[in-house]
Amino acid sequence: KCLIEGYERGHDAQSSLPTVDVEGQDISSLSDAPGGDNLPYEVQRAQEINRLFGPKGSPEAYDVIFDLHNTTSNMGCTLILESSKDHFNLQMMNYIKKAIAPASCLVLLNEHPLLKYSTSRSVAKHPVGLEVGPQPQGVLRSNIFEAMRVILKHALDFIELFNEGMEFPPCTVEVFWVSERIDYPRDANGNIIAMVHPNLQDCDWEPLNPGDPMFQTFDGKTIHYQGSGTVYPTFINEAAYYEKQQAFVTTRRETLLASAIRKA
Amino acid sequence: KCLIEGYERGHDAQSSLPTVDVEGQDISSLSDAPGGDNLPYEVQRAQEINRLFGPKGSPEAYDVIFDLHNTTSNMGCTLILESSKDHFNLQMMNYIKKAIAPASCLVLLNEHPLLKYSTSRSVAKHPVGLEVGPQPQGVLRSNIFEAMRVILKHALDFIELFNEGMEFPPCTVEVFWVSERIDYPRDANGNIIAMVHPNLQDCDWEPLNPGDPMFQTFDGKTIHYQGSGTVYPTFINEAAYYEKQQAFVTTRRETLLASAIRKA
Ligand SMILES: [Zn+2]
Ligand SMILES: [Zn+2]
Repeated sequence: KCLIEGYERGHDAQSSLPTVDVEGQDISSLSDAPGGDNLPYEVQRAQEINRLFGPKGSPEAYDVIFDLHNTTSNMGCTLILESSKDHFNLQMMNYIKKAIAPASCLVLLNEHPLLKYSTSRSVAKHPVGLEVGPQPQGVLRSNIFEAMRVILKHALDFIELFNEGMEFPPCTVEVFWVSERIDYPRDANGNIIAMVHPNLQDCDWEPLNPGDPMFQTFDGKTIHYQGSGTVYPTFINEAAYYEKQQAFVTTRRETLLASAIRKA
Repeated sequence: KCLIEGYERGHDAQSSLPTVDVEGQDISSLSDAPGGDNLPYEVQRAQEINRLFGPKGSPEAYDVIFDLHNTTSNMGCTLILESSKDHFNLQMMNYIKKAIAPASCLVLLNEHPLLKYSTSRSVAKHPVGLEVGPQPQGVLRSNIFEAMRVILKHALDFIELFNEGMEFPPCTVEVFWVSERIDYPRDANGNIIAMVHPNLQDCDWEPLNPGDPMFQTFDGKTIHYQGSGTVYPTFINEAAYYEKQQAFVTTRRETLLASAIRKA
């Protein structure tokens, strides 16, 4: 069972809209909350998703959900996984990367011991996020539309081959493992006092080294990255993340091993 | 008297929000409507602007209003005028263009016998729109912020020189004179069936010739421009204009003559 969902009202909604962000919450706890029309839209929607495509963790849950997003960040085609041990999904990533070469797509691994990042798509056994950018909110760009269509086609090809009994041998997959959320610099009242530095803007996935420019204050001062080593920023200047107090996330590049898989 | 206004809730608001677009209405007629809190926000705001900075057409009206916008279109720095006979504004355009060279800014002339385009800034004697892009809604980019700051600085310098009594000799100014609004192709139910063609996307101000690709349908067909001559499209794929049924506007390039001006 496979669901393809274009989910526009969640984390990519216009940041000025008052939204409850389902992706930041634990959906299994949401599903325990009492239902009813007076719950925020996103909570109702999350309960509905869990009822229709879950329940999460149960054998009846959907096998795969593709959760289609677009972003104002210059992330290109990004596939988002939630587990470094989901060999089915890692094999799918390897298949898609090979299929679209020489074009490229990157894999963001949202697995973190502290930053809980539980998504509505995670009711499925193999949740896959697809994030393509840059595209402003409220705009449809033909290049983004086409990129998404191509990635999804290869993903569905992979599932079909798997269902036909093809064996996928062990492989390695490069992933960008989420590390830290970086907020905008703020004054004592919580007001943002700086913008993403022009040297960092649009440079998603490019190395950010200690001492590199990171923010530029409104009066023109540069704020440098003070981390201990090289990181790879992404979701840089995503519109929907101002309200989540996130200018970008840092990641570390890792190579994961995917075991062979074959339909039982 | 000069007002600088960043006006985000009007034509650049998220297109999915239900808005009344003040810019499409005649503000002097709005000001005749009865006031009160049950009027839409934008109408109330327009009445307030007319009361504070007008009344439109009166000697007490503000001299200059700068109306600061940003756009999802790849328009760069665009100054928007409403009259081909406003020699003060044309001289200002000439001054700014020379001051920022070799960087460039373009002048869009929103003067049209049929397309009424009456803006809230038009309560001033010399209304100037400033439109900078591309910038997604809900995002602040340092390059856009800086470009806007530089243009505004030169505009204020010009006003200061004028107030000090400097004479500005006759000059010519290249403008892009608005010609036609082009809607997205739609089916019988009014649903959009095509996107801006990749060859046109981001090509604001570049010539569009009869036969050039203009839209791409969702099933991959190309729709070509059928006009009778070369035009210069702008506001291509602006988020806020989907609801106004406008994919882009066409303009024609003209050279205007500005008379000498000097403070009386
Ligand atoms: Zn997203
Ligand atoms: Zn605008």
